[in-house]
Amino acid sequence: MTSAVSKTPLKAATWWEIPQSEYQERLGRIRASLESRKLDAIVLFHPVRIAYATGFFHLQSERPIAIVIPVEGEVGAIAPMLERVHISRTPTITHVRIYPEYPGTRHPLYEVGDLLKDMGLSGKRIGYDNDGHHDVLGYRGPNLSSILENPTERVLEVVDDLRLVKSENEVRLMQQSCMWGNLAHRRLQESIVIGGIELPIRLNVANETTTTLIKALGSSYKPLTSGRLGPVVVDFNVGAKTTIPHAIVATRGINRGDGITTYVNVDIGGYHSELERTMVVGEPSAEFIKNFQTMLDLQEVAFDSLKPGRTLAAAEADITRAAEELGISHLQTHHTGHGIGLEGKEAPFVDLGDERVIQEGMVLAIEPGFYVPGLAGFRHSETVVIREHGPEMLTYYPRDLESLVVCF
Amino acid sequence: MTSAVSKTPLKAATWWEIPQSEYQERLGRIRASLESRKLDAIVLFHPVRIAYATGFFHLQSERPIAIVIPVEGEVGAIAPMLERVHISRTPTITHVRIYPEYPGTRHPLYEVGDLLKDMGLSGKRIGYDNDGHHDVLGYRGPNLSSILENPTERVLEVVDDLRLVKSENEVRLMQQSCMWGNLAHRRLQESIVIGGIELPIRLNVANETTTTLIKALGSSYKPLTSGRLGPVVVDFNVGAKTTIPHAIVATRGINRGDGITTYVNVDIGGYHSELERTMVVGEPSAEFIKNFQTMLDLQEVAFDSLKPGRTLAAAEADITRAAEELGISHLQTHHTGHGIGLEGKEAPFVDLGDERVIQEGMVLAIEPGFYVPGLAGFRHSETVVIREHGPEMLTYYPRDLESLVVCF
Repeated sequence: MTSAVSKTPLKAATWWEIPQSEYQERLGRIRASLESRKLDAIVLFHPVRIAYATGFFHLQSERPIAIVIPVEGEVGAIAPMLERVHISRTPTITHVRIYPEYPGTRHPLYEVGDLLKDMGLSGKRIGYDNDGHHDVLGYRGPNLSSILENPTERVLEVVDDLRLVKSENEVRLMQQSCMWGNLAHRRLQESIVIGGIELPIRLNVANETTTTLIKALGSSYKPLTSGRLGPVVVDFNVGAKTTIPHAIVATRGINRGDGITTYVNVDIGGYHSELERTMVVGEPSAEFIKNFQTMLDLQEVAFDSLKPGRTLAAAEADITRAAEELGISHLQTHHTGHGIGLEGKEAPFVDLGDERVIQEGMVLAIEPGFYVPGLAGFRHSETVVIREHGPEMLTYYPRDLESLVVCF
Repeated sequence: MTSAVSKTPLKAATWWEIPQSEYQERLGRIRASLESRKLDAIVLFHPVRIAYATGFFHLQSERPIAIVIPVEGEVGAIAPMLERVHISRTPTITHVRIYPEYPGTRHPLYEVGDLLKDMGLSGKRIGYDNDGHHDVLGYRGPNLSSILENPTERVLEVVDDLRLVKSENEVRLMQQSCMWGNLAHRRLQESIVIGGIELPIRLNVANETTTTLIKALGSSYKPLTSGRLGPVVVDFNVGAKTTIPHAIVATRGINRGDGITTYVNVDIGGYHSELERTMVVGEPSAEFIKNFQTMLDLQEVAFDSLKPGRTLAAAEADITRAAEELGISHLQTHHTGHGIGLEGKEAPFVDLGDERVIQEGMVLAIEPGFYVPGLAGFRHSETVVIREHGPEMLTYYPRDLESLVVCF
């Protein structure tokens, strides 16, 4: 059968990607920010800033990659031969200089100078996020400022200030991240058994959830910012380790009476969420019940404090006061929370020293915690988006103790 | 029953840790290097350099951690409250200043200045690895050099040059890493089936190998440098993706006739190894066989070229010449190899621009590769240690094509 009308093949809507129009909008806002700072262009080295601005996601290595966003005109980049095909598929980046290799017979950082010349930016005022490529995987090189003839200055805010407030596209991806995180956490809770070992349990749940996720999302889904980790991260600590928030994962084994603190984070379209729960193996002691309730009370104070228009520092001051009144401030080892987005942790911080103003559209992980030596750590973490009247919960896993007792 | 002789409980030898004596030796060599550079102390921010020098392994975050190694006297550190317990258990670090939190009401980087004063280093010449804490997870802060009254300079070599040559303890851990990597690769090969999806297969093999590994090593084993990844990383690409070495992991599915490129790396005592194989699904084509043989030939040239006393650049020049003679140099997108140790990739590089001399005890991943569009990528990677007469193989997985055909 033939038809007079030629048809374009249907393309599935991939809701798990930020649309190209949003990258164009971000670039427009970056250009406006440069203009207001009287900069003619910015050089970005950090892979997350590059991804945010252009949609080009890559695994950072010792081979420098940098992009140049000018106030006017096309976006440029330097990249190693290894990334040639990959970067050529990025619609936002149209002026690419490929260098053979790092370290190479000519240091690749000089390519940035050549690129600026190509782009008509000789002698113009250049901002950068870092004064050269990052100190990773054996890389050594000169400072960018030392090899350019341009006046230069460090400006992290140009991109990072935009990232503070999420678009509805970003919030939507983080909502989906929370849904998959909820599934992973349910499977984690179902998998905890007395005598079980932390590491295999968490890897198994992550694997199972990943398998389900990619069957659901199909073959075009890619974990964009989780690299070799895979898209689903499941972690938990048991017993004494729960009193050390950043403990390196243990293989101690699960015993009756242990407290448990969990962490789940799923990469959807490069975006993250954070879901953490305090749990207990078997019947909780009176002391555990009391501390658990204190934790819930403190988290409620945190939710109440996060109103748009206040500073984060003012919100944290409320929470600090409540912690003192609840008698647990001497057991705290960290502030209440942090931003989340393309990174599992990013600015701003719910901290006494963060004077930034709480804004609608900020997405925060809210996790006031305290750690009782000899008993357990107590910390739930919710991912919330700030709306007109305060936080809207993106995580929705049960928070009450009854729902979080395992092996009873 | 009682005994007149009091007994110390027996302590198991944990061969998967670098002994304390070696950390003391490393510190001694760092102090000597500082002295020869007329520096009075060095400030280190990079977590791997800190771990190498002191045995303190931590997950880097937006909360700065720095150590100060003086030419004489005890090693100092600044750390957030969150790491207080953890760092207090590190025998090599005895002078610790704890700050409450980042960002905090006073920027934590000022603690470094206070620490230097405490340590009697006011006004003395200070080296550093980075001019402040790294640009990670929303951190912002001043340059170290701008807040100190000391004369300062950047010196990466003080620690990194020591890391170029491995001790026998380090080689031993990497040998063990290769053994576990061999197991993971065998299970990977057994798990590849037509219609299978890359991500679940690789996570499943990693999980299974991890479970076996921790049963074998016992509960005191910890993956020190792999963070939330877990100790066993298994990755592979199939089909067209094999022609893009750093492709973000795909969910394309395995088909008959696909080429496969693999990657396996296991963390033993914080040390890594690299094992990569080119495989094929079902009967290989004549073109595949021919290219596979070319890859093996080129890797043999690489092994022959790596003699102690030559430069890495000279070795790479031999390999480059051979690639031209074999007619595949236009298909290459990266150099022949890199160092490996506490990081999966570190200095030095087997590269035309690396003029460092090949030394006995260097451990290198040797992986000359080339990528044939429309066919497949061709690359094996072996982890080798340089001995008096050349490389000694630490990896020993079969390299011949017959052993690497799956689903035949």
